[in-house]
Amino acid sequence: MTRVLVVGAGVIGLSSAWALTRAGAAVTVVDPDPERGASPIAAGMLAPIAEAHPTEPALLAAGRRAVEAWPDFASALAATGVDPGYRTTGTLVVGYTASDLAALDDLAARLAGLGVDVERLTGTACRRAEPALAPGVRGGLDVPTDHSVDNRALLRALRTALGAAGVEMIAEAPAEADVTVIAAGAWTPELEPSLDGLVRPVRGEIVRLRAGRRTPVLSRTVRALVDGRGVYLVPRATGELVVGATQDEVGFDRTVTAGGVHRLLTDARRVLPAVDEYALVETSAGLRPVSADGAPIVGAVGPGRVVATGHGRNGILFAPLTATLVADLVTGTAPDPLVAAAFAPGRFTPARIR
Amino acid sequence: MTRVLVVGAGVIGLSSAWALTRAGAAVTVVDPDPERGASPIAAGMLAPIAEAHPTEPALLAAGRRAVEAWPDFASALAATGVDPGYRTTGTLVVGYTASDLAALDDLAARLAGLGVDVERLTGTACRRAEPALAPGVRGGLDVPTDHSVDNRALLRALRTALGAAGVEMIAEAPAEADVTVIAAGAWTPELEPSLDGLVRPVRGEIVRLRAGRRTPVLSRTVRALVDGRGVYLVPRATGELVVGATQDEVGFDRTVTAGGVHRLLTDARRVLPAVDEYALVETSAGLRPVSADGAPIVGAVGPGRVVATGHGRNGILFAPLTATLVADLVTGTAPDPLVAAAFAPGRFTPARIR
Repeated sequence: MTRVLVVGAGVIGLSSAWALTRAGAAVTVVDPDPERGASPIAAGMLAPIAEAHPTEPALLAAGRRAVEAWPDFASALAATGVDPGYRTTGTLVVGYTASDLAALDDLAARLAGLGVDVERLTGTACRRAEPALAPGVRGGLDVPTDHSVDNRALLRALRTALGAAGVEMIAEAPAEADVTVIAAGAWTPELEPSLDGLVRPVRGEIVRLRAGRRTPVLSRTVRALVDGRGVYLVPRATGELVVGATQDEVGFDRTVTAGGVHRLLTDARRVLPAVDEYALVETSAGLRPVSADGAPIVGAVGPGRVVATGHGRNGILFAPLTATLVADLVTGTAPDPLVAAAFAPGRFTPARIR
Repeated sequence: MTRVLVVGAGVIGLSSAWALTRAGAAVTVVDPDPERGASPIAAGMLAPIAEAHPTEPALLAAGRRAVEAWPDFASALAATGVDPGYRTTGTLVVGYTASDLAALDDLAARLAGLGVDVERLTGTACRRAEPALAPGVRGGLDVPTDHSVDNRALLRALRTALGAAGVEMIAEAPAEADVTVIAAGAWTPELEPSLDGLVRPVRGEIVRLRAGRRTPVLSRTVRALVDGRGVYLVPRATGELVVGATQDEVGFDRTVTAGGVHRLLTDARRVLPAVDEYALVETSAGLRPVSADGAPIVGAVGPGRVVATGHGRNGILFAPLTATLVADLVTGTAPDPLVAAAFAPGRFTPARIR
């Protein structure tokens, strides 16, 4: 039985540990501080289309494959006892100004070029879909295949599934293992120097709100362009609403700033005026591990050493695909070639990554 | 030795207990939930002039007397071991629009009519006094005699002083006492039905920020009129900045709303643009006990029953005066007639208050 040490108890480490356990490995998870990473702070959007970047068709293709992997992943996880809060209610992208609408047209055209059809909606159609939307919304894109998951319920579900499988979760690494999987997010280069300069922390601040009993709510995720600036509102079945996120290159600083929270609230109330009446439950900041080219870095970096990091804003989305890839690499199974190639560490300087 | 039961461990209850202890009474303080009241959420402004209302000359006179009582109160308290964070750095009132400036002129004229001289400053003079102020500040009033105290350090200091004096602080009331002092804030009418309808809760939301090492700070309290809306920024020697406060008539609802926090941050950054870089440390809401006419209600309401409530936004300011008045009433000492008259419960329907 292969003994695997997974370093990192964020969503990537836990998902990988679970896939490895199901593949028959003897897994231990080590993390001195599981709360410090990006996973507990994520919004849980599974939205590769709404979040698509023009220059990243390979990432979009991987993202769509990730969305397809989610139903099985979520139901297998739910079967172990804790519902991860997976929702297929879709995503709406909305805009306000003429230039926001032009950006929406652009996104729709680029997606069409990549074979993805999304419906362009008028402002009225947007409000018909989501009656609580602000009157200022002038148009949108309907993306029913972009979903969401409750990131914190997901982490609970993974920990429960691992606990039930007898996986030890500890704060300090034991002496030895056959394979070490380093899934330490933005801290990965500290443990794997060959990734030095290839992964950096990008701070994201979020606010968590809660609707009152009579407050209007959203039924699906809304991603908005507010004067060219992005904000997203991800509703939970529980009445919670996650609003995110800022992106700041400030090193390992996890401070929640007054300016960041102000920006999120300003943008959120332009999307959904009712947020003024929502309870402000939490303000938090997490450090996303962003790679040099924006795509995840998952693969072998030496004998008995696998890394899984660099997921940036897409760690929750890519967790199931990454977990499967890690398990395939460790067990010597042929991986999905599209995903393995898109995430391969070897795409960076070959001299540095073997 | 008179046995006194003080109901309420907010600033009014604790200050009264301390004054009673010093006057020789055997005091017990009872409070099932000391954190739920207004005291921990206060900003700690000792600012009767900057906060003066046109129709309340008696309250202004009492407020000025309260400011005069603070140095002795603070130093006596500090002598028992914990520094209550009393600061005499003054207060600046600033305005932005023509109508804000007219309101400042108005306030200055009203104060002059009451014998209080305050200096009217240009925007440039305001920024000379506080270089971190926004360029949009167009004028101000200098009020060097309006001070501040760290409300939480004050509560710690009072609890420490009472503990050192052997005063018991408990969650449930014992069977009997010679005198009961009801200082239960907005909850007082529940315990003293004669105050029914005379004291109501008014929710105030605040945010607590913290300056970084290189972030500009204020040296004194700034009270601003932002498009006619009031906001205050109270700096602590520790680098903390308290921003307050909203005023909502929502009963006993202590929810912190997204709308309230957004408003406070919007106004704060118009006063001090550097707040964008401040850490957002806390958002909280407290329930101020506001009386039917806005002035405190302190006095006997029956044999062996004294109330001390209705301090609204001025509980910290009035704590020393109230404590002395309560101790005088309990020990049969002649009280300060100005304060006793301004706070007398008997000013309301005589049929209800004996």
